[in-house]
Amino acid sequence: MPEYKAPLQDMQFLLFDVYDAENHYARIGAEDASRDMLEAIMAESARFCEQVLAPLNQSGDQEGCTLTEDGVTTPAGFREAYQQYVENGWPSLSSPAEFGGQGLPESVGHIVSEMAGTANWAWSMYPGLSHGARNTVAIHGTDEQKEIYLTRLSTGEWTGTMCLTEAHCGSDLGLLKTRAEPTDDGSYRISGSKIFISSGDHDMAENIIHIVLARLPGAPAGTKGISLFIVPKILPDGTRNAVKCGALEHKMGIHGNATCVMNFDEATGFLIGPENKGLNCMFTFMNFARIGTAMQGVASAELSYQGALAYAKDRLAMRSLAGPKNPDGPADPIIVHPDVRRMLLTQKAFAEGGRAMLYHLSQQVDLVHSAQDEEERQAADDLLSFLTPIAKAFLTEAGLEASNHGVQVFGGHGYIQEWGMEQIVRDARISTLYEGTTGIQALDLLGRKVLMTQGQLLKNFTKIVHRFCKANDGARGIKPLIKTLNAYNKDWGDITTKIGMKAMMNKEEVGGAAYDYLMYSGYVSLAYYWARMALAAQEQLAGAEDKTFYQAKLDTARFYFERILPRAEAHKAAMLSGLDNLMAMDEGAF
Amino acid sequence: MPEYKAPLQDMQFLLFDVYDAENHYARIGAEDASRDMLEAIMAESARFCEQVLAPLNQSGDQEGCTLTEDGVTTPAGFREAYQQYVENGWPSLSSPAEFGGQGLPESVGHIVSEMAGTANWAWSMYPGLSHGARNTVAIHGTDEQKEIYLTRLSTGEWTGTMCLTEAHCGSDLGLLKTRAEPTDDGSYRISGSKIFISSGDHDMAENIIHIVLARLPGAPAGTKGISLFIVPKILPDGTRNAVKCGALEHKMGIHGNATCVMNFDEATGFLIGPENKGLNCMFTFMNFARIGTAMQGVASAELSYQGALAYAKDRLAMRSLAGPKNPDGPADPIIVHPDVRRMLLTQKAFAEGGRAMLYHLSQQVDLVHSAQDEEERQAADDLLSFLTPIAKAFLTEAGLEASNHGVQVFGGHGYIQEWGMEQIVRDARISTLYEGTTGIQALDLLGRKVLMTQGQLLKNFTKIVHRFCKANDGARGIKPLIKTLNAYNKDWGDITTKIGMKAMMNKEEVGGAAYDYLMYSGYVSLAYYWARMALAAQEQLAGAEDKTFYQAKLDTARFYFERILPRAEAHKAAMLSGLDNLMAMDEGAF
Repeated sequence: MPEYKAPLQDMQFLLFDVYDAENHYARIGAEDASRDMLEAIMAESARFCEQVLAPLNQSGDQEGCTLTEDGVTTPAGFREAYQQYVENGWPSLSSPAEFGGQGLPESVGHIVSEMAGTANWAWSMYPGLSHGARNTVAIHGTDEQKEIYLTRLSTGEWTGTMCLTEAHCGSDLGLLKTRAEPTDDGSYRISGSKIFISSGDHDMAENIIHIVLARLPGAPAGTKGISLFIVPKILPDGTRNAVKCGALEHKMGIHGNATCVMNFDEATGFLIGPENKGLNCMFTFMNFARIGTAMQGVASAELSYQGALAYAKDRLAMRSLAGPKNPDGPADPIIVHPDVRRMLLTQKAFAEGGRAMLYHLSQQVDLVHSAQDEEERQAADDLLSFLTPIAKAFLTEAGLEASNHGVQVFGGHGYIQEWGMEQIVRDARISTLYEGTTGIQALDLLGRKVLMTQGQLLKNFTKIVHRFCKANDGARGIKPLIKTLNAYNKDWGDITTKIGMKAMMNKEEVGGAAYDYLMYSGYVSLAYYWARMALAAQEQLAGAEDKTFYQAKLDTARFYFERILPRAEAHKAAMLSGLDNLMAMDEGAF
Repeated sequence: MPEYKAPLQDMQFLLFDVYDAENHYARIGAEDASRDMLEAIMAESARFCEQVLAPLNQSGDQEGCTLTEDGVTTPAGFREAYQQYVENGWPSLSSPAEFGGQGLPESVGHIVSEMAGTANWAWSMYPGLSHGARNTVAIHGTDEQKEIYLTRLSTGEWTGTMCLTEAHCGSDLGLLKTRAEPTDDGSYRISGSKIFISSGDHDMAENIIHIVLARLPGAPAGTKGISLFIVPKILPDGTRNAVKCGALEHKMGIHGNATCVMNFDEATGFLIGPENKGLNCMFTFMNFARIGTAMQGVASAELSYQGALAYAKDRLAMRSLAGPKNPDGPADPIIVHPDVRRMLLTQKAFAEGGRAMLYHLSQQVDLVHSAQDEEERQAADDLLSFLTPIAKAFLTEAGLEASNHGVQVFGGHGYIQEWGMEQIVRDARISTLYEGTTGIQALDLLGRKVLMTQGQLLKNFTKIVHRFCKANDGARGIKPLIKTLNAYNKDWGDITTKIGMKAMMNKEEVGGAAYDYLMYSGYVSLAYYWARMALAAQEQLAGAEDKTFYQAKLDTARFYFERILPRAEAHKAAMLSGLDNLMAMDEGAF
């Protein structure tokens, strides 16, 4: 397994050189998040993730989870690592102080989550999934519900899950069948079966709080008849609730995480939020969950890059076409070969570009919670709405590509389990599927976020990009990047207009263009983040004692613009080719 | 696991409507390969692959191979299936009659191999790997060696392997260390350890003939000091040779195939071919082995397509944006959604386009063996040399993409082992690695095949494409395809000239452009094969009673040209962006 080293220099560069974190935290009243404090948190988090979580990544994959009468047992070491994680106070980092948290902004928790997720994605899903439950209770819970559940979810003493999917419905939740019958004491009896429940059962915490989507008697059909319920594994009176893991799924990867079939057999549940408004309640923090999944794209790219890079420096094969670089050895290290560098640079461009995008988004999450005024809050919320489906779908697709490059750099050895590179691909493969597939994100972006707002959310973002280009079009060293970015940014608007016109004639055009529109948007967005990093690197370059890091940023930005960004053109051609080439064929002719 | 149905209609369409197989076989003196005979072989092969091999695909993955003191045990059913395969005469189909074969052309064997490989790739590698050993003996063996080994390799009574890779060298065989010491009786003692030996040991045949690359005492260093040896598991006198499987690799996929570490401990070997010319001897049939691996790309795309298609027709989720298509059901089948069709059509375009390419190549293999004159033989050989690296690298990359689409169509269910879709991805993942990685194929194409021939091999092919376009530029229904193909074909030459100029200034430019050049070549080549299929389909359409199949060909061709082929432009931009964006960064700055 590749050894994980948290990329602290890159993280600090983003925080302090690109996004001016000190000013950001000061503005939202989070003075605790000083530079010293942030650096201390990052160093301590890096230590924990590198030394405790990373060593359990491969063993967790090999051992997997097991189900017995007593429930799910996680792989050796997972439980102890979680206890240490809770004792160290990591789960409560970004939780509100009134519920036992440390009250730091969400973006600080994000930094730690990325490290944990890169070191061991399967493990990180146990605390990760608690976020949804915690947020549901925090936003929609009664004071009593908050008192019972929120503190212990915040400290990590208990974990949580989101129980949405059923065997016959995933993307289309309107079809769900789980029932909730009211009882005399104000609680409900929940009956039904949910599948694909990540961290649905385990031995790491003493209680698990399930947030369950179910239908009340007589509820309207479809998505408008879904309510949310809190269903704890252990009820407040200490008795065992009638919710049980019925089976573990056998999956391609993330073997260390228990993906459960959860059976609710007249389990006691408590309504949270208004009746029949369950889906709306969930959408209020869906963006956050999706950013959490987008992070898996960055995590896969980063870990696979670190593994491939070490191998590329070590493995000897053939000579550089420019003459031997390792004349005393039997061959040159493969990093001398341009095609190996192409793969490494692609991984690096996706890992660092994706991280830049997500750090920006996590600052928007902070602003949604704590902006100085409503205008700023709304702007952050809009930006988040627009960029989240792009981040979720594009970064996970990029992460999967990057993980595959990692295997490829290893040649045949990449296919062998002991090296750990193929595990990264298997683990990453889920990321384009769960929390809404790439296709679902694409429809969300083009349909809901762009066309339903008459392009407003897009315009908000392209305006930011445009202003950035205009302010820096004379910037030394990065002029070609700015020029290219500006052209793509303009084209983005033009393409959207064309598709909008087609969609007015035929709504289905949206479905035909959505995927390529999303990928185009992803490549252009990432170009913006790379240009921002290049600008910041250029600014640091002159005064820096060691210029290596900043020069590498500039080199990687150039690589991204020259070798990766042109893919956007292919997506443009595909999406503008029209719906007919997808729909002409009869179903029976496939 | 998806059920496999051999795509007989597509295969017959290629043979008889596109490639005029009857005329082809008549010209090479293979009158036995009549239409009736071919159809009978295909029907019988389909039956065997669908009913015997396909049901062992998933169980073979789950059970895997085991190693004991007595050697390797293959998964339940593999041995019996192989015995039936041998009894039915399948291995000897394309073997020369003088060595117990049925004397049919290689291209007939190719049809059967594709079916077997699609039904169960891991199983098909046991007979598949024998080809290399069989061809080595057939071409380079003495009469005595042919008598001892060839007949039983031809009938399948024995299987064979190719033992090339060592732990420290795969692509760079010049580094290999296995030694061969001459003995008094004319044989050699072979000592060393080989890794990644597919089908290296098993319980399916009574003997295994290893073709081993090793160095004679005092042999020149590097690739010019490698010789080939026959090392049978059981020696001709019936004694067990000192060659043994030391370990089985734990791999991402193809679990049903034994990937062995083979230890040679002063094993008895027999020189085959001239001393120190081992690599040259191997290159004589390397094209054939690489076409065999290209086939895995087609097989993965086909199997994953069949699985995804069945699911897309069955799974209900959401309504068509054009209005309900299944108004009596709770939702529409997902095949109504444009984005699902995009994925299915991509799989279909790769599977059928790749098959068309390989059928063409397999006819060239026939011509290399049995052309009417030397000019025709040389033309076929040149075409094969040029197209083989494209087919190997591009079709396996396409197969991997297609398999991932198959998972994606299933949503979260695609990630679950029981559906079998993720296995196709895991099995396919090896195909871009073994038999020369994509990067190695790319260097072979651009360096050896194109630039070292001053573009002659490329020109031979673009001339064929050009003539095809010219002859059909007025063809009804496919004019836009012809026009587009002609433009890409011309551009291919122009791009090559530009890269050739750069390479004259700096040899390393070849390495910087090779991958994108290969992918560009792949997309354009596949466009040619799709145009040929479209032309043939258009010709059949008028007279056909059931037009469905032919119309689907035309629709898929259009999809390929409008939605897939534009990717070539992104590869063009990347390869023309120059070497510097890959090499500028210091090794230490990565």
